Amino acid sequence: MSQAADFLAIAHRLADAARAVILPHYRSGLAIDDKADASPVTLADRAAEQAMRAILAAELPEHGIVGEEFGNHGEDAEWVWVLDPIDGTKSFIVGRPSFCTLIGLLHHGIPVLGLIDQAVLAERWIGVLGQASTFNGQPLRTSTATSLAAARLGSTGPQYLPGQAGERFQALAAACRFTVWGGDAYQYALLASGGYELVVESGLKLHDFAALVPVVLGAGGMMTDWQGRALDRDSAGQVLVAATPELHAAAMAYL
Amino acid sequence: MSQAADFLAIAHRLADAARAVILPHYRSGLAIDDKADASPVTLADRAAEQAMRAILAAELPEHGIVGEEFGNHGEDAEWVWVLDPIDGTKSFIVGRPSFCTLIGLLHHGIPVLGLIDQAVLAERWIGVLGQASTFNGQPLRTSTATSLAAARLGSTGPQYLPGQAGERFQALAAACRFTVWGGDAYQYALLASGGYELVVESGLKLHDFAALVPVVLGAGGMMTDWQGRALDRDSAGQVLVAATPELHAAAMAYL
Repeated sequence: MSQAADFLAIAHRLADAARAVILPHYRSGLAIDDKADASPVTLADRAAEQAMRAILAAELPEHGIVGEEFGNHGEDAEWVWVLDPIDGTKSFIVGRPSFCTLIGLLHHGIPVLGLIDQAVLAERWIGVLGQASTFNGQPLRTSTATSLAAARLGSTGPQYLPGQAGERFQALAAACRFTVWGGDAYQYALLASGGYELVVESGLKLHDFAALVPVVLGAGGMMTDWQGRALDRDSAGQVLVAATPELHAAAMAYL
Repeated sequence: MSQAADFLAIAHRLADAARAVILPHYRSGLAIDDKADASPVTLADRAAEQAMRAILAAELPEHGIVGEEFGNHGEDAEWVWVLDPIDGTKSFIVGRPSFCTLIGLLHHGIPVLGLIDQAVLAERWIGVLGQASTFNGQPLRTSTATSLAAARLGSTGPQYLPGQAGERFQALAAACRFTVWGGDAYQYALLASGGYELVVESGLKLHDFAALVPVVLGAGGMMTDWQGRALDRDSAGQVLVAATPELHAAAMAYL
């Protein structure tokens, strides 16, 4: 049992708290959608992060926090929680249940525990470094495909792959079975469950990817930057996730 | 009460039957994904269309059927059912609950009744020409936004907007608030519910759009081709859907 597993119960409590405050805002006033305003997504985002921060402040005050909404605190601590209360805010804003709550835990800057929660569907993926990942408590496994021709490729949108990154992505996409757009963090969770073989994105921040790494690794997948380097708090935001080492190598050759 | 409403109970029965046969295949063997094979999506697609055809054959044998999986029968009849058991097969294949069952009814070639069903979420949108559309039995309404700068724009993927169509779409997208990709029919349902202001696509077939038209119109939206013409069985597949007449006109200027 890794040390990170000691904090799993806290991670569940954070996700439960976020789910409870997010759900009442889901599809409430779909037409009220300006993030700068007191829109449902802003209210839900802030309330969920506050609920999670309150639990951490009470239970683990010596841990650091990197949050999407309320900034960073103690980010050089041994243990740092990385919170993204609503990943996929655009999906939330249009009323699509593929947004996720992301909860990551870094140990000396390395993601060692990750939780991906979809509130509407009551779906929760958990990853702990060195352990098998789970989906709603059940073990899961990435696809075993090894050829690009069989690979289902996902990415959130072409607007996040500008210029040369977009050209490289297109070359890779042409070699894959098909491309599905509009993924958000949900597509990394589905890759862990065997639904996608590849997810390739750019421009991700620490709070976008920290929670995903342990889930993907513990399901048998690979998750690195486009140069094949492991992701940590200093990574630049290009992410390549593959179901198998063969697909990882094949995709990296295009990127 | 329009004549189309007489067939609403049958439409519900078709959707119930499709939902029952589709759900057991959802995420069953996510790694088995070749549509040409006996994959879960193929099994679900075929079984759902067969279940719906059996009901129509028993109850309305004089009606025609246009089906995605098993071809057409009596397509020149006064009333023709248009069935797409699983719209968004790629979403189904990766395990994402945004695929839909689409059931449309044409009267003399014009879509007069539409049903959009999401089996996993137990969500059902209904539209009947001349009546207010509903979501799970409750009335719904499109967004009232009128400016492109406020518009949430959706489309399934850039690969379905090649060449000049893609350039025009990009010009429109640059004028909108943001673009969300990966919609399938689900985004038209969410537009009817107020979540999107614009959906713009190309290459749609009759079974892709017939069911959507009555749902969008009955929610207060507009749905035409890119030249502003009403959609019927002979439409070429370019689709422009807008929450308001102002947005429809503004978007058409780009297309």
